[in-house]
Amino acid sequence: MKKLIDLNADAGESFGRWRLGDDEHLLPLVSSVNVACGWHAGDPATMRRSVELAREAGTALGAHPGLPDLAGFGRRSMALSPADAADACLYQYGALRGFADALGVPVAHVKPHGAFYGLTMRDPEVTDAIVQACRAVSPELIVVLLAGETAARAEAAGVRVAREAFADLEYDDNGHIIIEPQPLAKDPRACADRVLDILDGHVTSAGGKRVEVDADTICLHGDRPNAVEIAAAIRDRLAPAEVTVAPIAEVLAAR
Amino acid sequence: MKKLIDLNADAGESFGRWRLGDDEHLLPLVSSVNVACGWHAGDPATMRRSVELAREAGTALGAHPGLPDLAGFGRRSMALSPADAADACLYQYGALRGFADALGVPVAHVKPHGAFYGLTMRDPEVTDAIVQACRAVSPELIVVLLAGETAARAEAAGVRVAREAFADLEYDDNGHIIIEPQPLAKDPRACADRVLDILDGHVTSAGGKRVEVDADTICLHGDRPNAVEIAAAIRDRLAPAEVTVAPIAEVLAAR
Amino acid sequence: MKKLIDLNADAGESFGRWRLGDDEHLLPLVSSVNVACGWHAGDPATMRRSVELAREAGTALGAHPGLPDLAGFGRRSMALSPADAADACLYQYGALRGFADALGVPVAHVKPHGAFYGLTMRDPEVTDAIVQACRAVSPELIVVLLAGETAARAEAAGVRVAREAFADLEYDDNGHIIIEPQPLAKDPRACADRVLDILDGHVTSAGGKRVEVDADTICLHGDRPNAVEIAAAIRDRLAPAEVTVAPIAEVLAAR
Amino acid sequence: MKKLIDLNADAGESFGRWRLGDDEHLLPLVSSVNVACGWHAGDPATMRRSVELAREAGTALGAHPGLPDLAGFGRRSMALSPADAADACLYQYGALRGFADALGVPVAHVKPHGAFYGLTMRDPEVTDAIVQACRAVSPELIVVLLAGETAARAEAAGVRVAREAFADLEYDDNGHIIIEPQPLAKDPRACADRVLDILDGHVTSAGGKRVEVDADTICLHGDRPNAVEIAAAIRDRLAPAEVTVAPIAEVLAAR
Repeated sequence: MKKLIDLNADAGESFGRWRLGDDEHLLPLVSSVNVACGWHAGDPATMRRSVELAREAGTALGAHPGLPDLAGFGRRSMALSPADAADACLYQYGALRGFADALGVPVAHVKPHGAFYGLTMRDPEVTDAIVQACRAVSPELIVVLLAGETAARAEAAGVRVAREAFADLEYDDNGHIIIEPQPLAKDPRACADRVLDILDGHVTSAGGKRVEVDADTICLHGDRPNAVEIAAAIRDRLAPAEVTVAPIAEVLAAR
Repeated sequence: MKKLIDLNADAGESFGRWRLGDDEHLLPLVSSVNVACGWHAGDPATMRRSVELAREAGTALGAHPGLPDLAGFGRRSMALSPADAADACLYQYGALRGFADALGVPVAHVKPHGAFYGLTMRDPEVTDAIVQACRAVSPELIVVLLAGETAARAEAAGVRVAREAFADLEYDDNGHIIIEPQPLAKDPRACADRVLDILDGHVTSAGGKRVEVDADTICLHGDRPNAVEIAAAIRDRLAPAEVTVAPIAEVLAAR
Repeated sequence: MKKLIDLNADAGESFGRWRLGDDEHLLPLVSSVNVACGWHAGDPATMRRSVELAREAGTALGAHPGLPDLAGFGRRSMALSPADAADACLYQYGALRGFADALGVPVAHVKPHGAFYGLTMRDPEVTDAIVQACRAVSPELIVVLLAGETAARAEAAGVRVAREAFADLEYDDNGHIIIEPQPLAKDPRACADRVLDILDGHVTSAGGKRVEVDADTICLHGDRPNAVEIAAAIRDRLAPAEVTVAPIAEVLAAR
Repeated sequence: MKKLIDLNADAGESFGRWRLGDDEHLLPLVSSVNVACGWHAGDPATMRRSVELAREAGTALGAHPGLPDLAGFGRRSMALSPADAADACLYQYGALRGFADALGVPVAHVKPHGAFYGLTMRDPEVTDAIVQACRAVSPELIVVLLAGETAARAEAAGVRVAREAFADLEYDDNGHIIIEPQPLAKDPRACADRVLDILDGHVTSAGGKRVEVDADTICLHGDRPNAVEIAAAIRDRLAPAEVTVAPIAEVLAAR
């Protein structure tokens, strides 16, 4: 069983007048945070606040670029060309860099959001384009992709990759995650059980199939109503198992 | 008469299906370019292309953040708070940085667009907020502001400032520029005359008043239908006058 | 003291993934509802739902056009030309009509939102343009404007006008309302007191000045955290005072 | 060979500062116009102007709802649910109604744009949802859909349908149109030839296959650079063939 893992959360998903997620309490419980960059969620003031929260909590900061679909929260698939996908990453990564630079926090990683993440699972050319864009920005920049073929392909292209598994999403029998339009509360114990499975190298699909998983980081969604409770339950399960939670860079260094 | 000046152009103002400006021919004629960052104009593919064009032409690259008003092209004033103004700059500057970093081009300056520029002329707290945001990003980053009180205030706050005058806009008697919703073609010779006036230290307002101007850079608008012709006419007038056109950083270094 | 009044609420202000307001419980407590139309809040699914709720509750339906500023919730002022203001009303009114027609509910009134409402208080040409646009659509369509000069001007132009006062906003000494960027909870009893003052023909400004008010309708904001509680408190105060709450059309007919 | 046909053009596709299409000269050459409603193109001022142009030219007015993707001009496919698709139609149809009502012009038809039209070709549930939404608004409202299975399905559901063929787009071997991201100029004579083929009951696919077509209306795209020239060439070909060009309602009445 793995003894070192990153926990990452999608956060910064408020927008203007609308609040979503309890980032103040969630960020201290995870080691990496993926901050929405304005296309599916996250306005500039929220992005600034998210960078401040990450700095206060000592959480590694990452960009969470989404599809240009605020009304759909980036969870409706969209036929982006590979070039569009690369540019969407660069624009949103950069936008977060503006705040990160002003506040003195490095941007460690990039992780596509929702249906954009779904594109990387299904369209290798999109994955290639994103990987090349991130590598052009910096060879240090880490790309977070679904553990399995998607992450392997990116790794083969010579970029730093964090292989990701999900504590709070179902998998289909192909090992792809099933993206919900609007996450509901989940049983924190079931999520913690799932984390132990992942550390053990597998998940069980919605269809009951065992899917092998080799992950560097485990995701939970900040817009799930009981996200803080889930994160706390996972932490409570990991402590007695002597699993260390650390940012992606440390996990990759120890691989 | 000044013998060294920067010529800057607002460019990259296409959006999606819609083309605007002849950037291919305009950029080689100016020494600095202000690239729209997606809020008033400029989509990611256009931003990428603009950075490529600046690199090819050897034109210094700057961000041209606008108000969040695509339908109004950022030329309708909007009551942004100082904090909103700072965040608008950081977001858009950063977004351009994404492409600039990927293509290996530095972002030298930031210049607010249209009615956002108008806010800096009228609201000193907005100017202060923008200046502090840019300085937080980097002490090297240059802010372009209207020559006169606005630029002086920013300079006093300890940021690198380029004092700007306009070849193709009218001034009112207070020395403020008059922002048009949609620029029409202008007489290139009149614009070239205006440039010589600026180098001589003044402009004549729409009301016929002489306004003193001490400028480091002179702007022309890429969305004016005959922008390329205007730029060429200015160049033709500057050459025999032995005026050197150079990027802002060189002009500031020689001050 | 007036014995007949309309109570109106701004509602339908959710957007996509983000929920705002408790419209299910608020709408049965008011006689008119102003539904956000997508520019400051309100996506198509929310608009459909709002029309359904109005139909179920028997609440008169109105359009609540806002400035094109989702990130600012339409509460940042913006320099719309009179023509832009008219077109903003027609577009958003029409968008609501799409759902209203499909669901068989008439759109009884139009009330500008937030900083758009603020424009009508300060710019008579904007008011004129809106009034003419609404009259062109239908002579039956009611425009809701601030009781006082604004409503009087519109009435003189020959449109049906509902003169509005506010249960939950402060007034300045000129009788203008003070628009908050983000409404906080308010004491329901104070709001109910204010309603009785309005029925009695006056309000007290934030500066302590008595301002005369002659109103047909009284507004409360659905995005105030305790909006339902405020509405209930007002209803509880009106019942023993034998004041009838009825839609605008009935109030205007009885004038 | 058919002797009666509607010619329709997509128009009103400017946005804010950006001009697209020569609607002034195109509208008098067609019998129906599909006006962009703000999601893929078309701002309120452009919509107003389009309705005025349709009134002046005596062209039948229709709504041209698109996907919510301004940067992609609605030509990137997007996974809208049937409910989202219905609401997208109602919102945009309604928005156009605002201007149409104010200017006294009826909205005769609805035709989805670009990749939204593509969804109706491939997803029968989307077609059903759109059809039901339009019928709920009015039994008179005509829906324009691809001649073939798509139109037949809608017709079976009891809505008024105009079966459409395309003068300026290629067909695949399944009889589906191939949507270009950005239409280029086309040979006007080839487009006129295609129109005669359609009147004769067929088109030839890009792969050389003969596809049977039974159409009430023939489309050409206003954003094609030589759209006016194409329309004129078609008119020139139809006149000697004694084919009458008339709005959809007349074509349907004569069926």
